Amino acid sequence: MGNPEIHQHRHTVGQAERMRLKPHLPACLWFTGLSGSGKSTLANAVEQCLNRDYRAHTYLLDGDAIRMGLNSDLGFSLPDRAENIRRLGEVARLFMDAGLIVLTAFISPLREDRARARQIVNTGRFIEIHVDCPLEVCEQRDPKGLYRKARRGDLAEFTGISSPYEPPLGAELTLHTDREAPEDCTRQVIQYLIKEGILTDAAS
Amino acid sequence: MGNPEIHQHRHTVGQAERMRLKPHLPACLWFTGLSGSGKSTLANAVEQCLNRDYRAHTYLLDGDAIRMGLNSDLGFSLPDRAENIRRLGEVARLFMDAGLIVLTAFISPLREDRARARQIVNTGRFIEIHVDCPLEVCEQRDPKGLYRKARRGDLAEFTGISSPYEPPLGAELTLHTDREAPEDCTRQVIQYLIKEGILTDAAS
Repeated sequence: MGNPEIHQHRHTVGQAERMRLKPHLPACLWFTGLSGSGKSTLANAVEQCLNRDYRAHTYLLDGDAIRMGLNSDLGFSLPDRAENIRRLGEVARLFMDAGLIVLTAFISPLREDRARARQIVNTGRFIEIHVDCPLEVCEQRDPKGLYRKARRGDLAEFTGISSPYEPPLGAELTLHTDREAPEDCTRQVIQYLIKEGILTDAAS
Repeated sequence: MGNPEIHQHRHTVGQAERMRLKPHLPACLWFTGLSGSGKSTLANAVEQCLNRDYRAHTYLLDGDAIRMGLNSDLGFSLPDRAENIRRLGEVARLFMDAGLIVLTAFISPLREDRARARQIVNTGRFIEIHVDCPLEVCEQRDPKGLYRKARRGDLAEFTGISSPYEPPLGAELTLHTDREAPEDCTRQVIQYLIKEGILTDAAS
């Protein structure tokens, strides 16, 4: 240990060593959309399919859970949302480096922030998935009662009501949860992953 | 998707589903010690052994790398060090939830901060490893020339010189890198993991 060159030993286990434990490539499935659009539902359905049918090693970074843990120091102002997404991009990068397929389910309302996450991840396997559902439908679903609160003015900076949502211009996938069944949406994601060579179609 | 109960579908892939892909339990190996004590060297050696001999799925969170990524907004004041360690604890928790053995190599100088990380991880498998090496030896090694800089006054808040290091009082393991060879230190960690039932001794 007295060797001045001890730092030569760094990074001895890299993506290649971890990859031989896994039947898929690492990737980031970045679900973006309004509150109530179905991001978490779809991300969970896709994760379940990947785990069950493809034995893929996955991890879901869910907005609410991360907000209570890693990003518990952040609020909902646009700068805090930017920092929220920056850290998520960094964590997604770590999980991909560890060889996983990581799924993120965050509103991530701004194009610039999503572009930054893509840049942080910095591979061809950042897959932006627009969970596209009209505001009226999301507001009607209102699974957490947040739209009602926001309309009453009890909730500031709420995306779609008092804070902007910028739909992606070049998403890898767009899913219409107002008119496509969850199973159809899930199938589209899986087929995309097979087409891109991230999964092999060994499950069939 | 119009179902108001859509949040019932959350967390369908949990630790149990991921565990069936892995031959070990998730754990956090938290290396703490002075700069130059050999944290990164040992963490790398342990990771390599876990990957090669046990086919364990591991990930190493290295101080320098995280400081350039996730925690690039933080400095070296004690509050920033506390936030650095808090976020690391949260990320370690996520990796454990994903089923991995996560190794962290950070100076993490304060007992209170390490106790908080342990609390965040919140399992019996937070293994604090004190990489114990006398300051004089670390300063003599000085692999990055940082002690020289700190002694010259060119580096503020440097642990051991101008910022405190509080050695653990109840570390799960203490390794003496000034008088034990790296292979012996690595063996002690592996044996501990086997003793605790985190690894099975199938490699032999």
